[in-house]
Amino acid sequence: MLRGKQTWWFENRPVIIGTGTVVGPDEGAGPLAADFDLVHAELDLNQKSWEKAERLLLEQASDFAIKNAGIRKDQVQFYIGGDLLNQLISNSFTARDLGLPYIGVFGACSTSMQSLALAAHLVNSGTAEYAMAGTCSHNCTAEKQFRYPTEYGSQKPPTAQYTVTGAGAAVVAASGSGPVITCATIGKIVDLGISDPFNMGAAMAPAAVDTIQTHFNDTGRMPADYDVIVTGDLATVGHRIAVDLFARDGVPMQDTVFSDCGLMIYDIERQKVQAGGSGCACSAVVAYGHLLKRLQRGELKRILVVATGALLSPLSYQQGETIPCIAHAVAIERGDA
Amino acid sequence: MLRGKQTWWFENRPVIIGTGTVVGPDEGAGPLAADFDLVHAELDLNQKSWEKAERLLLEQASDFAIKNAGIRKDQVQFYIGGDLLNQLISNSFTARDLGLPYIGVFGACSTSMQSLALAAHLVNSGTAEYAMAGTCSHNCTAEKQFRYPTEYGSQKPPTAQYTVTGAGAAVVAASGSGPVITCATIGKIVDLGISDPFNMGAAMAPAAVDTIQTHFNDTGRMPADYDVIVTGDLATVGHRIAVDLFARDGVPMQDTVFSDCGLMIYDIERQKVQAGGSGCACSAVVAYGHLLKRLQRGELKRILVVATGALLSPLSYQQGETIPCIAHAVAIERGDA
Repeated sequence: MLRGKQTWWFENRPVIIGTGTVVGPDEGAGPLAADFDLVHAELDLNQKSWEKAERLLLEQASDFAIKNAGIRKDQVQFYIGGDLLNQLISNSFTARDLGLPYIGVFGACSTSMQSLALAAHLVNSGTAEYAMAGTCSHNCTAEKQFRYPTEYGSQKPPTAQYTVTGAGAAVVAASGSGPVITCATIGKIVDLGISDPFNMGAAMAPAAVDTIQTHFNDTGRMPADYDVIVTGDLATVGHRIAVDLFARDGVPMQDTVFSDCGLMIYDIERQKVQAGGSGCACSAVVAYGHLLKRLQRGELKRILVVATGALLSPLSYQQGETIPCIAHAVAIERGDA
Repeated sequence: MLRGKQTWWFENRPVIIGTGTVVGPDEGAGPLAADFDLVHAELDLNQKSWEKAERLLLEQASDFAIKNAGIRKDQVQFYIGGDLLNQLISNSFTARDLGLPYIGVFGACSTSMQSLALAAHLVNSGTAEYAMAGTCSHNCTAEKQFRYPTEYGSQKPPTAQYTVTGAGAAVVAASGSGPVITCATIGKIVDLGISDPFNMGAAMAPAAVDTIQTHFNDTGRMPADYDVIVTGDLATVGHRIAVDLFARDGVPMQDTVFSDCGLMIYDIERQKVQAGGSGCACSAVVAYGHLLKRLQRGELKRILVVATGALLSPLSYQQGETIPCIAHAVAIERGDA
């Protein structure tokens, strides 16, 4: 078998037997609302802090994933998760309440596919029969940590993105019914020198393109081998850059195949979300809620989800550093394909 | 084979073929100084910020690990690392400069063994021929992020710990000469309600005991099966609590076997380090620098390194939350054992 250097092959065909997706009101007002397990009407979920609201999103998504998988919580051997908050507190507290062995990971918004790839690796190798991947983000926790306090009402440029309020979790199993994870390509850090925290899409686009091109090189696949190739959260600005980079390199990436979760989750024209969605939950809820349902309905046969992460640190930004970016890709096929 | 639920077995015997350890002046004044690859005389490494100094420690430790492994940098297929700084900036920038596929992980001070376990898993399963694990911490970056600005000169209680300035990296290979990683036990979050960021050892001790007991249950091993069992950074207060918990549970843990890296790295009586060492680098440099050299010299045959992490968030602490803790254990044997 062609075995590329950055790509993990899952010959034993680990299966996503259940997912859970929970979102906030803005995502519930978007075009994919019907695909999520739960839509909250209140941004604060009636919690005392935004952080407690974010944690509740993840706890609920995890519960849905386990319930939809049709297994007991204690059958999940390892929980792999991360989020945008310092010290990954949404995940630490969720893992505490789940009571499961926990592997904390951080790839900013690439965390969704990073954790899914690791869960698939543990299951594929026989280390676990069931492993769960999860991630979450909240618009207001991200704004206050990375930019300005929400109460400040700071205006934003049109290149800014709107952090998705939501959480997604997936249970991966050695056998069962559901979409199959066939391989994953682990990205390298790509940093072309962008330091503007209000233009993350532009910073992340080259990392997404690098991982996708590496995926094609490693696997011998081409864009036409996928029904859908989605990046995580490049949004309008970053997506256009990625399209241009593929065109420059002569990669035949069709508009009908190549999209971005940050463009899909909101009605960009109608909703006030600047360039589009972002955040750990963006690719997680679009992939686990929307795309996997399309695979299961038979509308898609094979997809590539390329979660994109801007490893932005307010501190290193203040010290004049640029934003290192990364993207991890996971290939998922219809179970009966 | 007895296959416990939380323990990963590495039947293909991945080997640690090279390590790198770099420390600051206080660690260089401690009893293990001769075991490190490089001791810096200046706490700031002549860098413009503490963060840049921490990053340089990790870059140097990675370079030493690759050089000591006798391989080229581009032979390392995956770099797995994390640190204490928000968004793991020391690792993001080091991974950028290394140019290697990167998996960011966060387990606070348990990151050393979390990353080593994952590297061993990738190599054991045949996914990688070479994988590198790395972590770092710096006394002044940790103090300013988690407690008070260093310039403030805040006094500390005797239960406080002294964050190790240093970095450790290890190259794991499918074959070669060096200590062998035989299994790893992934911990659960344990949180007994301690919320004092100046008493992390007490918070972490129950997590360490939980993981060690689980390791014994999963593997059928006993304390006597190890020449050394070290926790990562419980220091004086936490170590005493762990000893008491084992005694309560009737676990025959000998003083000559059971120790703590935070007690080993400094001369606690002579150096002003309060209860002892802590930080991601504490267990990394003691394990990779000191203990692996003792294995290779034939003084030890089999060790268990139990890195302990307090997933302390200043924000969740301010919101009244307690400190979730975790510990991950990795068993390492002499290569010819």
